[in-house]
Parts: sequence; structure tokens; C-alpha cells
Amino acid sequence: MTERIKDLIDAKQYTMLRQELLDMNEVDIATFLEELEHEERFKIFRLLPKDIAADVFAYFDIETGQMIISSLSDSEAKNIIDNLYADDAADLLEEMPANVVKRLLRNANPETRRDINQLLQYPDDSAGSIMTVEFVDLKANLTALQALSKIRHVGVDKETINTCYVLDEKRKLIGTVSLRRILLADTEKLLEDIMDDNFIAVNTLADQEAVVHMFQKYDLDSMPVVDSENRLVGIITVDDVVDIMQQEATEDIEMMAAIIPGEKPYLKTSVWDTWKSRIPWLLILMFSSAFTGKIITAFEGALAGALVLTAYIPMLMGTGGNSGGQSSVTIIRALSLDEVGMKDIFRVIWKETRVALLCGITLAAGNFAKMMIFDRGDMGELSIMAVSLVVSLALVVSVLCAKIVGCILPILVKRIGLDPAVMASPLITTIIDVLSLILYFVFAMAILPI
Amino acid sequence: MTERIKDLIDAKQYTMLRQELLDMNEVDIATFLEELEHEERFKIFRLLPKDIAADVFAYFDIETGQMIISSLSDSEAKNIIDNLYADDAADLLEEMPANVVKRLLRNANPETRRDINQLLQYPDDSAGSIMTVEFVDLKANLTALQALSKIRHVGVDKETINTCYVLDEKRKLIGTVSLRRILLADTEKLLEDIMDDNFIAVNTLADQEAVVHMFQKYDLDSMPVVDSENRLVGIITVDDVVDIMQQEATEDIEMMAAIIPGEKPYLKTSVWDTWKSRIPWLLILMFSSAFTGKIITAFEGALAGALVLTAYIPMLMGTGGNSGGQSSVTIIRALSLDEVGMKDIFRVIWKETRVALLCGITLAAGNFAKMMIFDRGDMGELSIMAVSLVVSLALVVSVLCAKIVGCILPILVKRIGLDPAVMASPLITTIIDVLSLILYFVFAMAILPI
Repeated sequence: MTERIKDLIDAKQYTMLRQELLDMNEVDIATFLEELEHEERFKIFRLLPKDIAADVFAYFDIETGQMIISSLSDSEAKNIIDNLYADDAADLLEEMPANVVKRLLRNANPETRRDINQLLQYPDDSAGSIMTVEFVDLKANLTALQALSKIRHVGVDKETINTCYVLDEKRKLIGTVSLRRILLADTEKLLEDIMDDNFIAVNTLADQEAVVHMFQKYDLDSMPVVDSENRLVGIITVDDVVDIMQQEATEDIEMMAAIIPGEKPYLKTSVWDTWKSRIPWLLILMFSSAFTGKIITAFEGALAGALVLTAYIPMLMGTGGNSGGQSSVTIIRALSLDEVGMKDIFRVIWKETRVALLCGITLAAGNFAKMMIFDRGDMGELSIMAVSLVVSLALVVSVLCAKIVGCILPILVKRIGLDPAVMASPLITTIIDVLSLILYFVFAMAILPI
Repeated sequence: MTERIKDLIDAKQYTMLRQELLDMNEVDIATFLEELEHEERFKIFRLLPKDIAADVFAYFDIETGQMIISSLSDSEAKNIIDNLYADDAADLLEEMPANVVKRLLRNANPETRRDINQLLQYPDDSAGSIMTVEFVDLKANLTALQALSKIRHVGVDKETINTCYVLDEKRKLIGTVSLRRILLADTEKLLEDIMDDNFIAVNTLADQEAVVHMFQKYDLDSMPVVDSENRLVGIITVDDVVDIMQQEATEDIEMMAAIIPGEKPYLKTSVWDTWKSRIPWLLILMFSSAFTGKIITAFEGALAGALVLTAYIPMLMGTGGNSGGQSSVTIIRALSLDEVGMKDIFRVIWKETRVALLCGITLAAGNFAKMMIFDRGDMGELSIMAVSLVVSLALVVSVLCAKIVGCILPILVKRIGLDPAVMASPLITTIIDVLSLILYFVFAMAILPI
């Protein structure tokens, strides 16, 4: 299909091209246009009918949106901005140069301008910044019939009318009522009698992660946002929550892999920005591994007498790191899904201790067998039995340390208000490396004649 | 609040207790009951009015749900099953012993039984297995007014009536229409004139991950599921998609940390099951790190002459592993969000190569400076300049290898149909460990007099 459209562009068959585009989904039109050169993209974008243009625009990435909007005439730009939902418009404006924002806000209609300005004031990642101000609010003393006629009247421009919000005379939120409930109710029933007063609401300043948890916990489609006096100021719809959820998961995953989270998709991030997101942790971890180097240097005497011990250092450190990583990643995910909290710390430690002992003993047994069978030839003057014992003992104890450190640190880090994901594998690995090495050398010096 | 309820239980104040529970949200009641002992839980559950009992039941975890349902009488169980949405009921039954399933299906009403049986037949993780069969379908030749009256008539039991589905006389899906559109339309308009025929649908056998991508890409609230002849058989609602999305993210994160994904939340998994999910990869990675041991043994001669080289092995292997981990995790996430595909492999490699060179050079410079300043004393007979050069060169080349291997492997693994997340840090680390070590020793033997 994309091929055919490209042919039409080349042949300048603009009428047929317009027809072809009208048959496509708006998301697909946006994706297709994003791949074109700006000039061509702009020409085709202007072929679209007004209402479809606004819809397509909503799906552009920020960068394309900005290029398009700064090429449009004032009246065309006004049409787009007025037709976007205020939350999308605010996201767009937040990223644009101040002079363009000014021009656009000057041209938008007063109501749009007020809505956007309000959204721009809330802190990043707060419920206020992701809410939309387009919702249907109804007075509690309306009948179902009156409510329906009001919805018919004001509903057209609202992001969702599936749930309506019932307010008292001071604009305080006192209940929610679904369109379905209104529709299925006796026409003369009052809203206050059919509304649900046991609803879930959130404050404008609540963190967006908390919002995501509530959507998930209560299976919501939308959620009202209220100010400190319980007045309704906006709603959050589930489509925005889905995006935030993926974004938060991506951030956690990136932090776990020692990457500073970025905002753009991989292929749209410049080489320079990718470098900036990766190099800080690489440097920190490289310099901190100087400690492991120092430990090895300190035990150089022991190693000189039993060089074969060096051969097991990578395996020991690797296994310790993997064991600790498993625990920390599991706990970080459980923390971020709210399955585990500070209050569970002792249950977690007790559980990890038992898992660690099981894992450690299994690994030690496996390693002992493997060494006795395959490594006989490499031992020089040392007894294979003694070396296998040292390595296996070090394994059990370092897996135990790794799993306990791995489960405690993320909980403590969250406790002091930081994101536990920074405590994932790489950083914990460095701590565990040091522990494993010291244990290894201590066992070696105690058991082997060196 | 929970405290007060517990007091009421102890005081056997069942009437007040019932009242207290009725003021709570169903999700919170379920969470509270899950924490009680079974006998007490069961007693309180039976205090709940019929309709609320069914709602609360829907939020129980599978295990609690099974315990409750097997304690209920046949008629009580029938009430619960009939009141659950068919997709929730099917999920519950799937996990239960065959004799209990038989008993429950025998007692459920025929319509429920048919719906559940249908859902039980679809393969795990397919669109068919997560859809619900409760939707509103309308004939294309109805007017808006007729449609509204049909919705009023059949809507009560449906999971969502926000979107209705328009079928032709052969039950083929030809369009969707929102309740809002019907409500706002001229009452005499025909559905076929106001419906959206440019809708997104999915086949029953499509993978649930593909479903998640489509919800996200097209900002959907619900999506129709059709069979191979385009007949409507069910719908998927966004609340189920939210759950799947979190579950898929958790699975990816677990696989990246060398854990075999499980189904239960952390605190509900037994020590034994946790061990089983963690030990296989630990064993595989431990045994495969025998290769690194063999390489060190092979170069023992070189090491004996320059024992100080050993001190940099952990740093080199660690930095290589972290660099490769960053690339592989980034690419795995981009693959799973559909931002990157097989077709982008050369763009990805070209980008990673440039990032790797930037990172490698920065790290090498940092390391060179650090060694020249702090490590002078540890060199024995070797020149500090030469050793620093060897370590820094090895760093650049192993970061380059690590990042390229890290970005290629996940894409190839996905290409052959496996989950790319298995290619995350730990496995890639083992490959990179071997590469880094060989490079290190090669540089050392070429540059140093050993």
C-alpha cells in the first residue's frame, strides 16, 4: 500500500492520493508521513481534510509535530491546536520554543488557551500533567433524562463520555456515573440516586506511577483528578496510562542495565545522546572495580604460590553477580508493581536466605563434581580435592551474600526515596565481586598450604 | 480501617461487619480477605450480598478463588460463575482440578457454559483466550433510535457497551460504532451511515503480544476479535491488556536477569519454585564460565611473568559485560515494543559501532589516566606506560566487540523465533568474557616483554 502511495506522489496524482489516504487509519497516515522528507510530508499533510488533519497530527512524534506546526499558517495552526485534546496540545507546547508557543496560544481560542495554560503548570510526571480537562460534569439533582440531554449537548468535544462526574454546588466531586448506568436507568431517577459514591480519585500532585497502580488495581477506564479541596479539575484516561506504563517499564529496564533513561525511541536517539546515557555508569563501574584489582594485588603472594586459583576468579565473580542480580531484579520489579514493601523486608530476607542456600549448595555440588572430573590436570602441586573444596565453599558463601545483599539494597534505596532500579545488577555486582574475592582468598589461605 | 474490621471479626459483630464491608471498594475487600485464614475468610465472604460477592470474587487471586469456590454449595457456586464475565470464569476454571470444573460447569446456566467452553478451547496467550464474549452487536440497518433501545435491552450484562459492533446478516463484522456516536446522532440515521468501517480487528489465534501493540499503537479501549471468516466472536477490553502488558514486561525483565519467568507474585511463590526458576541459568552460566578459566590456564605462562595483569581481569570483564548488557537490553526492549525489527539490523549495527567507539575511547582514556596516577607502585619490573597501554587497548576493542555482539544476538534470536530476552546480559556476558580475555592476553604478549 505504501508503495502505491509513493507512486501516486511521484506521479503528482493528488486527487487519487487524497482518496487513498482517506481510506487509511489516522495512526497509519501519521506513521507513513513521518517517514517522508519534510517538504513532501508537509505538502501531503495539507491535502488532508481539516478534521482528519487534526487527528493525524495528534499521532505525530513531537519533532514532526513541531516541524509541521511551524510551517503552517496561523489559521491552519489554530485549527490544529483547537482540535487537539488539551493534554496532547500541552505536551506539544511544552517541547516547543517560547516564541512559537506564544504565537500558537495567541491564535488558539480563549477556552483552549485556558485549558492548555492550566495543564502546563503542573509538575512533570504528576497526575495534573497527564490529565485532560475535557470531561462531562453533571449536577447531582439532574434526572437521568436531563443528564442524557446535557450529554448530547456538550459531549461532542469531550475525550470520553463513558463516565460522567457528579458535582455538588461547590464543584466538589461527590460521585461518578457511567453513561451506561444513565442510559439503563429509569428516566426520572436522580443522578444522586444512581451514582457511585464509592469512587477512586487522585490529587493533581500525585505521582504518575501511583496513578498507574490505581488503574491496575481497580481495573479503571478513567479516573477523576481533584484539587486539595476535592474539586474536580480533570480526568485521566486509560490510553494515557498505557503509555506511561510502558514508559515506566522501559525506564526500569534501562536503569537495571546501567543506562540513564532517555525519552526517545532507540532509532530516534542520536549517537551522541546514546553515549551520554551510557557512559556515566560505565565509568563509575570501571573505577569502582579498581577495588577488586586492589584485592587481587593484595593477595598476589598467595596467588604466586597457586596460580591455578586465578582460573576460578571469573567463574566465582560471575556466579555471585548472577545470583545477586536475580534477587535484586526480582525485588525491584516487585517493588515497582507494589507487590512488596518496606514492611515485608524480613519475609523477603528469610525467603532469599533459603533460596540462596538451596542454590548455593546445588552450584557447589555441580562445581565440585565438574572440578574433580575435568580439572585434575591443571593443579600443579596442589591437591585437587582441596582446591575443589575451596572453590565450592566460596561459591556457597558468596551466593548467600549475593542474594541477601541483592534483596536488601533495593528495599533500602526505595526507603530513602530513590528509585530502587539503580540498585540493579551492575552496581550490586561490583559490591558482590569484592565480597566474593575476599571470601575466596580467605578460604584459600585457610585450607591450602600457601 | 482494617484494624477496625479485625476487631469486629473478633467481637463477632457480623451485622456491623457487613455494613463496614459494604462501604469498601470490591478490590479492597478482596485484598483484605486474601490476608485472612481460609475459614475466617470463607465465613466473611458468605456475609456479602450476592452481587457484591461475585464482584469481590473476580478480584481474588486464582488460589483463593479456588479455595472459596470448592467450599461453596452448588447453588452458591453457580451464582458466582454465572455472574463472572466469561473470560474471568474461564481463567479460573483453567487452573482447577477436572472434577471441580465438571461440577461447576454442570451447575452453571447453559449460556454461561457455552461461553466458557468456547474460551477454554483457544491456545494460551492467544487473542481468543483473553477475549470476552460479552459484547453488544447490532445489525447495520438499525436506526440510531432502534440501536439505543436494543442497547438498553441487552446492555446490562455486557462487559462494555461503550463500543458496539455492527454485523451484516452473516454475522460478519463490518463496522464499529461508539455509544457516544449513537447517542449524539440524529435518531433516524442508520447505523451503517454512522459506523466506522475503518476499524482494527484481530484474529482469535493472534498472539497476545501483538494485541498489546495494537492497543498501544491505535490508542484503543477495546478491540473486536474475529474468526478466519471475519465473523465476530469476542472482544478484548483494555483492562485485560493492561494486565498482560505488565505481565509481559515482568517476563522480559526476569529473562534478562537469567530467571525463568513464573506466574505468581514474588511473595506467593514457594522457596522451592523460586529455586527452580533460578538454578538452571545459574548452572548453565557457571559451567560455561569454565571457558574463561581454561583461557586463563592457557596463558598461565604469561601471567606467571607478569602477575599484575591478573589484577585488571575483573575490571576488563566487568566493563565488557556492562557495555554489552547495555546494548542487548536496549535492543531487546526496542524489539519488544516493536520499535526495531530485522530490517533495521544494519542501522542498529552502524549506530552501536559509533556509540561503542565513543564509549571505548572515553573509558580507555579514563583508565589510562587512572593507572598512570594511582597504579605506579604495583608494576614490579614492567613499565607502567606499557601496561596501561595494554589494558586501555584491550578496553576499547572489548567494548566494541561487546556492543556489536550485544546488539546483533537479540535480533538474530528473534529472527529464528525465540524470545530475544534470553539473550540479555548474563548469557551475552559469558561470550564477551571470553572475547575480552583473549584480546587482553594477545595485546599483553604483543606489547609486554613476557
